[in-house]
Amino acid sequence: MWGGRFSGGPSAILQAINASVDVDQRLAEQDIDGSLAHAAMLAACGIISREDARDISAGLEAIRADIRAGSFTWSAALEDVHMNIEAALKERIGAPAGRLHTARSRNDQVATDFRLWLRETCARMEDGLRAYQRALVAQAAAHADWVMPGFTHLQTAQPVSLGHHLLCWVEAAERDIGRFSDARARLNESPLGAAALAGTAFPIDRDMTAKTLGFDRPMANSLDAVSSRDFALEALSAATIAVVNLSRFAEEIVLWTSRRFGFAKLTDAFSTGSSIMPQKRNPDAAELVRAKPGRISGALQGLIIVCKGLPLAYSKDLQEDKALVFTAFDDLELAIAAMTGMAADLSFNREAMEEAAGEAYSDATDLADYVVRELGLPFRDAHHIAGSVVKEAEARGVSLSELPLEVFQAIEPRVDEAVFNVLTARASMESRTSYGGTAPVRVREQCALWAERLAQE
Amino acid sequence: MWGGRFSGGPSAILQAINASVDVDQRLAEQDIDGSLAHAAMLAACGIISREDARDISAGLEAIRADIRAGSFTWSAALEDVHMNIEAALKERIGAPAGRLHTARSRNDQVATDFRLWLRETCARMEDGLRAYQRALVAQAAAHADWVMPGFTHLQTAQPVSLGHHLLCWVEAAERDIGRFSDARARLNESPLGAAALAGTAFPIDRDMTAKTLGFDRPMANSLDAVSSRDFALEALSAATIAVVNLSRFAEEIVLWTSRRFGFAKLTDAFSTGSSIMPQKRNPDAAELVRAKPGRISGALQGLIIVCKGLPLAYSKDLQEDKALVFTAFDDLELAIAAMTGMAADLSFNREAMEEAAGEAYSDATDLADYVVRELGLPFRDAHHIAGSVVKEAEARGVSLSELPLEVFQAIEPRVDEAVFNVLTARASMESRTSYGGTAPVRVREQCALWAERLAQE
Amino acid sequence: MWGGRFSGGPSAILQAINASVDVDQRLAEQDIDGSLAHAAMLAACGIISREDARDISAGLEAIRADIRAGSFTWSAALEDVHMNIEAALKERIGAPAGRLHTARSRNDQVATDFRLWLRETCARMEDGLRAYQRALVAQAAAHADWVMPGFTHLQTAQPVSLGHHLLCWVEAAERDIGRFSDARARLNESPLGAAALAGTAFPIDRDMTAKTLGFDRPMANSLDAVSSRDFALEALSAATIAVVNLSRFAEEIVLWTSRRFGFAKLTDAFSTGSSIMPQKRNPDAAELVRAKPGRISGALQGLIIVCKGLPLAYSKDLQEDKALVFTAFDDLELAIAAMTGMAADLSFNREAMEEAAGEAYSDATDLADYVVRELGLPFRDAHHIAGSVVKEAEARGVSLSELPLEVFQAIEPRVDEAVFNVLTARASMESRTSYGGTAPVRVREQCALWAERLAQE
Amino acid sequence: MWGGRFSGGPSAILQAINASVDVDQRLAEQDIDGSLAHAAMLAACGIISREDARDISAGLEAIRADIRAGSFTWSAALEDVHMNIEAALKERIGAPAGRLHTARSRNDQVATDFRLWLRETCARMEDGLRAYQRALVAQAAAHADWVMPGFTHLQTAQPVSLGHHLLCWVEAAERDIGRFSDARARLNESPLGAAALAGTAFPIDRDMTAKTLGFDRPMANSLDAVSSRDFALEALSAATIAVVNLSRFAEEIVLWTSRRFGFAKLTDAFSTGSSIMPQKRNPDAAELVRAKPGRISGALQGLIIVCKGLPLAYSKDLQEDKALVFTAFDDLELAIAAMTGMAADLSFNREAMEEAAGEAYSDATDLADYVVRELGLPFRDAHHIAGSVVKEAEARGVSLSELPLEVFQAIEPRVDEAVFNVLTARASMESRTSYGGTAPVRVREQCALWAERLAQE
Repeated sequence: MWGGRFSGGPSAILQAINASVDVDQRLAEQDIDGSLAHAAMLAACGIISREDARDISAGLEAIRADIRAGSFTWSAALEDVHMNIEAALKERIGAPAGRLHTARSRNDQVATDFRLWLRETCARMEDGLRAYQRALVAQAAAHADWVMPGFTHLQTAQPVSLGHHLLCWVEAAERDIGRFSDARARLNESPLGAAALAGTAFPIDRDMTAKTLGFDRPMANSLDAVSSRDFALEALSAATIAVVNLSRFAEEIVLWTSRRFGFAKLTDAFSTGSSIMPQKRNPDAAELVRAKPGRISGALQGLIIVCKGLPLAYSKDLQEDKALVFTAFDDLELAIAAMTGMAADLSFNREAMEEAAGEAYSDATDLADYVVRELGLPFRDAHHIAGSVVKEAEARGVSLSELPLEVFQAIEPRVDEAVFNVLTARASMESRTSYGGTAPVRVREQCALWAERLAQE
Repeated sequence: MWGGRFSGGPSAILQAINASVDVDQRLAEQDIDGSLAHAAMLAACGIISREDARDISAGLEAIRADIRAGSFTWSAALEDVHMNIEAALKERIGAPAGRLHTARSRNDQVATDFRLWLRETCARMEDGLRAYQRALVAQAAAHADWVMPGFTHLQTAQPVSLGHHLLCWVEAAERDIGRFSDARARLNESPLGAAALAGTAFPIDRDMTAKTLGFDRPMANSLDAVSSRDFALEALSAATIAVVNLSRFAEEIVLWTSRRFGFAKLTDAFSTGSSIMPQKRNPDAAELVRAKPGRISGALQGLIIVCKGLPLAYSKDLQEDKALVFTAFDDLELAIAAMTGMAADLSFNREAMEEAAGEAYSDATDLADYVVRELGLPFRDAHHIAGSVVKEAEARGVSLSELPLEVFQAIEPRVDEAVFNVLTARASMESRTSYGGTAPVRVREQCALWAERLAQE
Repeated sequence: MWGGRFSGGPSAILQAINASVDVDQRLAEQDIDGSLAHAAMLAACGIISREDARDISAGLEAIRADIRAGSFTWSAALEDVHMNIEAALKERIGAPAGRLHTARSRNDQVATDFRLWLRETCARMEDGLRAYQRALVAQAAAHADWVMPGFTHLQTAQPVSLGHHLLCWVEAAERDIGRFSDARARLNESPLGAAALAGTAFPIDRDMTAKTLGFDRPMANSLDAVSSRDFALEALSAATIAVVNLSRFAEEIVLWTSRRFGFAKLTDAFSTGSSIMPQKRNPDAAELVRAKPGRISGALQGLIIVCKGLPLAYSKDLQEDKALVFTAFDDLELAIAAMTGMAADLSFNREAMEEAAGEAYSDATDLADYVVRELGLPFRDAHHIAGSVVKEAEARGVSLSELPLEVFQAIEPRVDEAVFNVLTARASMESRTSYGGTAPVRVREQCALWAERLAQE
Repeated sequence: MWGGRFSGGPSAILQAINASVDVDQRLAEQDIDGSLAHAAMLAACGIISREDARDISAGLEAIRADIRAGSFTWSAALEDVHMNIEAALKERIGAPAGRLHTARSRNDQVATDFRLWLRETCARMEDGLRAYQRALVAQAAAHADWVMPGFTHLQTAQPVSLGHHLLCWVEAAERDIGRFSDARARLNESPLGAAALAGTAFPIDRDMTAKTLGFDRPMANSLDAVSSRDFALEALSAATIAVVNLSRFAEEIVLWTSRRFGFAKLTDAFSTGSSIMPQKRNPDAAELVRAKPGRISGALQGLIIVCKGLPLAYSKDLQEDKALVFTAFDDLELAIAAMTGMAADLSFNREAMEEAAGEAYSDATDLADYVVRELGLPFRDAHHIAGSVVKEAEARGVSLSELPLEVFQAIEPRVDEAVFNVLTARASMESRTSYGGTAPVRVREQCALWAERLAQE
């Protein structure tokens, strides 16, 4: 494989640490696509004969069929996916196989394969996130006017619409899709033809291979083509941010399905039991999604460490990129699918949510706003008044709406009966009609906009 | 500050862990800008009076002047930048100050401030990277036909143009600029008016404040507005990837200026000495840039951990975002400036580079390519022939061009005198004329394109 | 500072990226201690005169007094803490100051200072964690027989003792103390005398300085002495693991003090309010501790990246170690203090906890265990029987103890009245008397053991 | 598996994200060991019959034999290693299999298995590092008096002994061994008998199972036993620090075997070739070790994220621990073996190293020390004098020893001929006889000490 200069063979430990075929065989389809494009170009440019190109293509397609059928034998001694396929090609078509590697190196070859793989994979993540958004929007539309407590610091803060809450994750997913889309566009350049690092003296046509493979253009610097991995770092960053967003909703599912919250239930399709406690219904999938930032962000950090301080051009360190990226995207794909499934599967407990929404003086802001609006006091003063009322209600163990009017008036004489109109969870929710606010009228508008947008995708 | 309900004060340790003003006072300008926009909108919507708005604006501008002059007294007891400024406003203008916080919360306020800060900062990083590109392109143009060894695995691989090598980092910086630009565009939405988490019942105009502050639009979901930090994660990802790219060139500067390489020199402006070894010229700045992925990627990792699994809406955990982001961007700004300075400061040793380029059989690929091109052998066979020739040359302790023709012919009889035309570093470099290749003619084209592009920025 | 060879000065950007005195001035005490020990040794070995040593010592002590008094002027132009102090010494005592740096370099000097600092700091963390354990044990002893729900997957699983739950964090803290203690012991070797990297030809006595500074021994390899930072990585690992443990209890405080749980309350000393919602009592300190793994683990990750792939001996990259370590330990110290404060401050709601402990069929395992014990069925069969009973109780909307005996007997005829003895939360808790189990009798034993152990510290 | 309560089955996506058997089947041996100990204890305590225990043991040993023979069929539908083995046991021995899970849960079971696995694995890492130390010490002893340049900032600093340099990595490995040993000791406590989270009412004997399994003691708190993973974080920290140390020597191998350094050569056993450049000898294994901190430290960061903020007791998130830990230790084991192989395989170029050691005024410190020692000047003045001499030599393009005495005397008149005795690389190296210094006499002492110590292990 390495030509005529090596006399002693590699040690077993070198082989063990060096072999990558168990990982990079996932690039087989991309590798064959790249080789097909390369062979066709070599023939078009007169570098190899039409006949050789034809044999090479037929051989590669036959190998692809074997791989798909599971009948291809991978060999660790042949190191990687590229050499495995080239060796199979040689066995199948003989001498012309040796012409395929003209004006090419494994360095530009693997960079090409890897970009093709990530391009497809980012697109698949975007599709997955779209499905997740659809599940969320459907639930949001069905629960636009359900009241639940909005939390800050996990303390009951102000009543919000359940639909509004769910739409928050639709917004986050939209940015995640944007990040994958940007990453995908930025990486869509062809390294093929950069050869080992310096380009080649053969009269190749890099535009042709770029076009065949769906790249926007050939990369403009051969050193950059074989040694840059910032595209993989960017894709991993997008994956990490996406799974962090998912982990936040996953945590909410864990909380909501707990007995203490009792806001929601997962069906048996998304619950597991206990080997010792027969009564348990565990939200395992939500917990696992909550944990997934671990491995995905670990992969990002891992590749950062690999790339840090690496001089040009290709170094073997870069081989570590694939295991990190493959694992991370496998995890993310599972996490998106699981969240999509759970988003659709969740059923909610209207009474529990509404009751919780009215607890803990969640209407105190509404009282303060009433004082500002009706009595013209500065907000800071109104805030102080509302605080004093809450203190009194707490002391009496009642809600604000259960306080007699005299209590309000003892603190601020101008308060009148109208104050009670703002002192319910539902009234509070319905009043917040500012753009982006939680009033059902606003939530329904957003649901409609999203439904339309998602229908167009 | 927290209204009328708290009777005991916070403990010293709570104050210590909670106070953020030493960090977030960096947002003072943005905080004032946001408050000015908010006050003007409240007045335009009839929520506060024109007079109050005028007093508030005048007061805020006076505070801004104090801050700029360094005469503003920050108080940790007032917790954060927002309360410090509001307290100062109250002291300065009295009651109307209390009306400023109508239909607003610190939650949407800090999100607004932070987005404004990151928008400016990303733009400044892009400008810095442009300057870095200019320094690199100038050096590349001046060294388009200087030969140096291209390395893979830090082994001499093939001769490349020094200009070509430098342009590789221009390409990488371009993608870094793209990432900052995308992050900047994606975060350019206004949280202002989301209030604590649910929007508000006051008839505010969020489009107006968004427009005043240069945002593209108000954010569509109030919960998302106050609790999302994916925009900061994205900016930190872009920063991390950028500094990883910088660290790679920094490593090369360390190598090139070492005695063992002797390829380049930094002037006294970028060298430091030793407290014990009088002869040392240390590339400290390059080493520090090489190390900077540590702190910047640590900040990214830190914020990932902070955000992971956090339920809606605002939680105090998010306060950690600013220290992480500020430190990371301070570091990145220094790193970009240092690399720009060094890129311009480096002087190169033409002889040392050219001599090294010719070593270690860096023309072996050229020999193999000659065999393919001239003798029509498959590349794999040609590779084997070249390997055998190298082995023989190594055994004799000579370069390929020093071997007698008979040696070539003993291995492959059809090789003739013409082979010697391809066997020099310069010939090798000049032959690689494929698009993106290292031939000076290609490098000069790229330099011209970059010069034009950078002139337009 | 760098001797007679530099003609041009450093650029502003080099100075900016290079200066570390704003960070490393925290090592001033250690730096002076190290210099005192070094000077005394040089004199004892006859390398400098007794008079010079006396002047140096007096000068250094005067500088220490200035620094403590806040009257020392730090200069960024003098780069770091070492040169600042040496320059001040020269100004104060003249020529003899120049003899202090004999047989020493900043490389061994900073390694010495840093190890001294970390040794003290680890010890301080251990003391802090001991105080935290004391607060926990006191609460555990006071609540040894309070019943609360034990959760798995945040689902109610089995009743446990609140004291038992709190002791879990005592155990975790004990391991954290152990890690700091091990790290402290392992780093307690003296780099002083390794000089720049190779040792020195002066007849120094490294045992003497090691002993003076409380180190166990001088380091045996001079290259190792100046270039290893694994001791800092180990200390940061211990800090990260400790704060992860703290973050878990912090999360529980956030949950327990939420309205949905209602298990516990923090006094005003550890609660904060809202700028917009007057009713809020936010557990800010707990949230901030929950977030602290971000910055601390980010620092660990940062230093890993800095050290990765760094060749011997000292490289400037290592300068980044201090900012990372200082910030991490400042954060950890705050986090420990805050958790200690909150552990003591928490008051619990006995009724809410006990009621919750009885919910959600938390006695189902007890039913299964009863079936195994009394009827001799295999556990797997008993588990299945208990599951069926739970299903029936769920369908009826009652607890297990509210089911009529016939229901049990319809599923397993041999169940008799005795089954009701095991079907309460308290009975369940009290029954688990295995070593390490949650029965109050066991919890009290553990409290006593801990009280004794902590009294001896 | 989950008893009688679940009617609908889990969704395909839940199964996919939840199944862990492909990962945790690596714990099969430990799982069987734990079950054997548990069954024996249950019988000894009269909780199950002797006959059942005998059947269980025989069944488990038969299953172990199947697994070792590769004839065991793992089923993802059975979720994990525990249920796979228990199901196989039931099939093999029938009803008694159902008694094995008495007084046990998968929560304490997996914690037990995992601690056993990590205990063995840490010990194996220690053995591997011992072998690495032996290879290094052998090379160090053989090269105790070979001169090479000692670098700081990768600039030639002072001559050092090659043996001294290699011993530096022996010291680092010793600390790594210490960290694994401490981690192993700290984790050696038995969780078995903690059951799901609360202990059990069965009269079990946890001391007996702890002893059988080689644990030092049973864990004292059942909640801690099932939910702590700090032991895994500590082991991963030790692994990360160890591989960072390895990566530093790996980087040196990459540098030393490069043409620019030419200090060392790897044989074919540790070199690979190029698919396009026949002359290449790439140090792939060294590069891969240099990259390994990526994946290992990524695993550490990953598990930090998983554990952060996780409330008690067991949560499914913890399932992620095993994939992270397994991958990290597989990588570390490969890295240690590869470094051991390369440490032994390296051959050095005496002339190239000695020549390089004499370059770049590496004897300037010796000149300064001479001035201090012989002329009694303060070090700072001597440093300045040496700097001036270097500047003059640089201007003339000669080494210090090539300068005429007059040049020295023009700068400092009292310098005499004796100065030339200190001005060679070898003299410099030999002069540094302080403890821990690079003089061969010191290096040989250290080699002897290490040889003795390693012989005793």
